[in-house]
Amino acid sequence: MVRYKAVIAYDGTHYHGFQTQDNAYTVQAEIEKTLKKLNNQQPITIHPSGRTDAGVHAQGQVIHFDYPQEREAEKFRHALDTQTPPDIAVLSLEPVADDFHARYHAVEKTYHYRVDIGKPRNPFKRFYTSYYPYPLDIEKMQRAARDLLGTHDFSSFCATGSAVEDKTRTIYEARIEHDEANQELLFVFRGNGFLYKMVRILVGTLLKIGNDRLPEENIRRALLTEDRSLTGPTAHPEGLYLMNVSYETKKAGKNDNKTLT
Amino acid sequence: MVRYKAVIAYDGTHYHGFQTQDNAYTVQAEIEKTLKKLNNQQPITIHPSGRTDAGVHAQGQVIHFDYPQEREAEKFRHALDTQTPPDIAVLSLEPVADDFHARYHAVEKTYHYRVDIGKPRNPFKRFYTSYYPYPLDIEKMQRAARDLLGTHDFSSFCATGSAVEDKTRTIYEARIEHDEANQELLFVFRGNGFLYKMVRILVGTLLKIGNDRLPEENIRRALLTEDRSLTGPTAHPEGLYLMNVSYETKKAGKNDNKTLT
Repeated sequence: MVRYKAVIAYDGTHYHGFQTQDNAYTVQAEIEKTLKKLNNQQPITIHPSGRTDAGVHAQGQVIHFDYPQEREAEKFRHALDTQTPPDIAVLSLEPVADDFHARYHAVEKTYHYRVDIGKPRNPFKRFYTSYYPYPLDIEKMQRAARDLLGTHDFSSFCATGSAVEDKTRTIYEARIEHDEANQELLFVFRGNGFLYKMVRILVGTLLKIGNDRLPEENIRRALLTEDRSLTGPTAHPEGLYLMNVSYETKKAGKNDNKTLT
Repeated sequence: MVRYKAVIAYDGTHYHGFQTQDNAYTVQAEIEKTLKKLNNQQPITIHPSGRTDAGVHAQGQVIHFDYPQEREAEKFRHALDTQTPPDIAVLSLEPVADDFHARYHAVEKTYHYRVDIGKPRNPFKRFYTSYYPYPLDIEKMQRAARDLLGTHDFSSFCATGSAVEDKTRTIYEARIEHDEANQELLFVFRGNGFLYKMVRILVGTLLKIGNDRLPEENIRRALLTEDRSLTGPTAHPEGLYLMNVSYETKKAGKNDNKTLT
């Protein structure tokens, strides 16, 4: 038995999310179907760093799985890449320590969120950005984003239905780039972990602040209380990308930063 | 009766091309359906600068049509933009001279062709670039592209089935940009007109030259003869974009260069 770690990218448009569900087209089901073919029809279960919801994309999702014997890594990666559907790419694959775990050993994740702010809406971006054609004070949003940095209880930024007890997370990077040539906003969030729908609620809150429909100080207030009413709506899934998952190097090999350009 | 000119963009992925055909989902049929709604259910026919094939995209296609009375242009544009499907955008709309013709008065067209040359294939680009993962001598391709400049008989670069008699066209710009960060090639062609499938045959020929499967001098030889066997295959539709159509200013108004970023 050899444990493999793979970095994968997927266009989430046509998937009902990552995780296998009855009768739904999911990323997990498609990869497991291919691995079964590559394993003499014996099933293999994959484990991601975390689920992604329907319509959410990944440029650097990490999975692990166990395979009966060692295979030449690049040939194995190529077989898995070319036999999965064209909206899934296998960027890298390598054997790792037997106790490596894609979810439990993740120490840092990076998400991007793209918003088309041009008029009219760009038809080529409709599955790859959300759309926000209303006035925005981008500098105010950038100031408010800085309030997220550091270690806080993010209960006010978590969707109901989460089973997680400890809602304390540390955010290392929270910023907004304004790409004027492409009429896009790019939100970048990097932290030691994120709660259910947290990134999309962060974006929804920052857009409401930028559009002057929530006060700038609501981020600070929401981090001191547990009041979901202080924060904004959950932004649409199509703008969200899981970009990178990092691990402590000794367990996870060296390729954890490979992402698609 | 007022004649309108509109600049439109569309993601061609889900269309069976521009032109209306029986029972096929086409760009023309969708726009005409919307115009009919905006015209008390009276049909309106639109005329493009030229057709595009199934899967081909446009960032700056031009159409004209006649409408019974003058309407406030920006409101009319907005109504047409928001009521057409999300993969069609109406970028600009303006009244023009009664004899303006989107096809007959076009004096210059610009096409782009995008090729993903990265490994593995980028799942986010699968409908928006073609894929060519084989070795390419890009400088040789750039040299060969320069042979296209000027006025030539392009019969060797035309798909069979074209009814056009005169196959002489003038190319003002023919170049290839190598975007190393995005692992993409961008082909740019600007000329006074293009034959049926000409841009895609130009790309197919240049890729074969770059991959050393056609001699560099075949472009020059093909322009001197009418020998389709000297040129390469027709490149896939999904990499092709009609970027801009230019007109003499006096007839066509001033917005003919607006394109999506």
